[in-house]
Amino acid sequence: MLVGIGPGSVEHMTGRARAAIAEADTIIGYVTYIKLVADLIEGKEVIRKSMTEELDRAIEALARARAGKKVALVSSGDAGVYGMAGPTYEVLFEAGWTPDSGIAVEIVPGASALNSCAALVGAPLTHDFCAISLSDLLTPWPVIARRLDAVAQADFVVALYNPKSGRRTQQIVQAQQLLLRHRRPDTPVAIVKSAYRRREQISFTTLDQMAEADIGMLSTVLIGNSQTFVREGRMVTPRGYANKYALEEGGATRAGEQAGRSLSTGLLGWLRALQAEHQAGATPDELARRHRLPADYIVQALLAPAEAPTAAAAEEGEA
Amino acid sequence: MLVGIGPGSVEHMTGRARAAIAEADTIIGYVTYIKLVADLIEGKEVIRKSMTEELDRAIEALARARAGKKVALVSSGDAGVYGMAGPTYEVLFEAGWTPDSGIAVEIVPGASALNSCAALVGAPLTHDFCAISLSDLLTPWPVIARRLDAVAQADFVVALYNPKSGRRTQQIVQAQQLLLRHRRPDTPVAIVKSAYRRREQISFTTLDQMAEADIGMLSTVLIGNSQTFVREGRMVTPRGYANKYALEEGGATRAGEQAGRSLSTGLLGWLRALQAEHQAGATPDELARRHRLPADYIVQALLAPAEAPTAAAAEEGEA
Repeated sequence: MLVGIGPGSVEHMTGRARAAIAEADTIIGYVTYIKLVADLIEGKEVIRKSMTEELDRAIEALARARAGKKVALVSSGDAGVYGMAGPTYEVLFEAGWTPDSGIAVEIVPGASALNSCAALVGAPLTHDFCAISLSDLLTPWPVIARRLDAVAQADFVVALYNPKSGRRTQQIVQAQQLLLRHRRPDTPVAIVKSAYRRREQISFTTLDQMAEADIGMLSTVLIGNSQTFVREGRMVTPRGYANKYALEEGGATRAGEQAGRSLSTGLLGWLRALQAEHQAGATPDELARRHRLPADYIVQALLAPAEAPTAAAAEEGEA
Repeated sequence: MLVGIGPGSVEHMTGRARAAIAEADTIIGYVTYIKLVADLIEGKEVIRKSMTEELDRAIEALARARAGKKVALVSSGDAGVYGMAGPTYEVLFEAGWTPDSGIAVEIVPGASALNSCAALVGAPLTHDFCAISLSDLLTPWPVIARRLDAVAQADFVVALYNPKSGRRTQQIVQAQQLLLRHRRPDTPVAIVKSAYRRREQISFTTLDQMAEADIGMLSTVLIGNSQTFVREGRMVTPRGYANKYALEEGGATRAGEQAGRSLSTGLLGWLRALQAEHQAGATPDELARRHRLPADYIVQALLAPAEAPTAAAAEEGEA
């Protein structure tokens, strides 16, 4: 049982997380998180790990499971996000595990650091976001750099995991440089350390000052997109209501827009406009430049059906 | 209190989520999720919403709070991920709210759909991932298309929210076309509907068949990166151990690599190699093409310090 315990406070654990730990014969995990469930571990074998390789923990878990023990591998946050889920499956497959080999695997989901940290600073993740680890212990730097460049250009909210450590001090500087190529210097940045725990620290800064900020191994860094703002101490990324509603005029829908329907610049409206631009003489290459999309995608889009859906489909509501 | 209840099963709610609902005078939320906490809502005002605009729910919540009520706004998953957190803060700010105006705001984090769905299919999110909503009700299509193109090219695992509805049937087709420009046709895709609920459905397919798959409004779609594989019915994205360890040789570290240290192709090693390539005669433009990074970033990288950290910093361990 790979148990995600969330940010590390008892009240933010799920019922299933606590139950899984209570059911286990053996608990394996980082000492700090095991302390949180001290009431549940009486009489159990407890293997407290320090900062050792995840593979070791998975291998120990497998050995105990093969001996017939129920094992709870405890992760902070969510075990599937830079946690024990991946390493455990890799170890299992390397050892020839199959689902009918007598060892069942359950992953208990939890709120990851990006969810917990976001909850403390406002609503930064409201729109499309990504998670990037700045750890190059297993990943070549160019892979990380290309990812930072891509999400900066495409205007994602960015959550940085493993942003900095005693050895890795320059990755955050490089990340800042890459993001500044596409994002304004005053883009809001939130840094949260030890969310929901005793030494919790929350600070706000801007992208141009991010590299000098107090960031450590227990920090998660949230970088806003081009629309994110900070107001009254809250970092908020708009969902896009301003595209449809004139909020300054009491919320009336803008001309050409309808509540509960795609925007006039949603897919079908955009395809129709694109096809009209083409018929008016714009070449695919010109359209590609104008819309900042690949030319071969524009060519496909010019051939895509752009009619409105049938009345029957239109009956089905949508939030 | 904006309460993220997780996937929608009682055991996967956190203690704080249940406590917040128990504390509230008024509960506002989608009828399905309110049913889950039937035991907690005795004697409370319950406003069951259908598929209405999030702004309405936030406005009702504010009105009750101004009347002195404690309000729990219930969201599935995590309120910060395409949920009520953003809309609520937008409504609050539009109404002139400040933190000292007598209305406190708490966001209770929960596991979002991507965490819950991932837990059911294996370990797809192990490495860098992103979330993209295919809903163009508030977002122009070109914005979404540019994001799909960017994350496909930079090899992220992709979680699609709001992938399809009665009216929006073509966005998933366009998304597939964009992703296929950079991702193999046999890239694993998992589709999860109603995770941890009575009508839970899990299916696996590949990117080239994704548009024909059974996908609806209750589905989350997880698309693997270039390394993701499916084995024994589990979708797993490797963390990158193969970059450092020769798993086929019992896990020995590869030549030039060290456990607990950055890869030889991590930032410092990469910078040194880049600077050596430059000194050997490669121009910044050639290096940009070779490493598939922007030329001006390469120029900055050629000037970056590439020495190893001090012995003191090297003492500090890192997982």
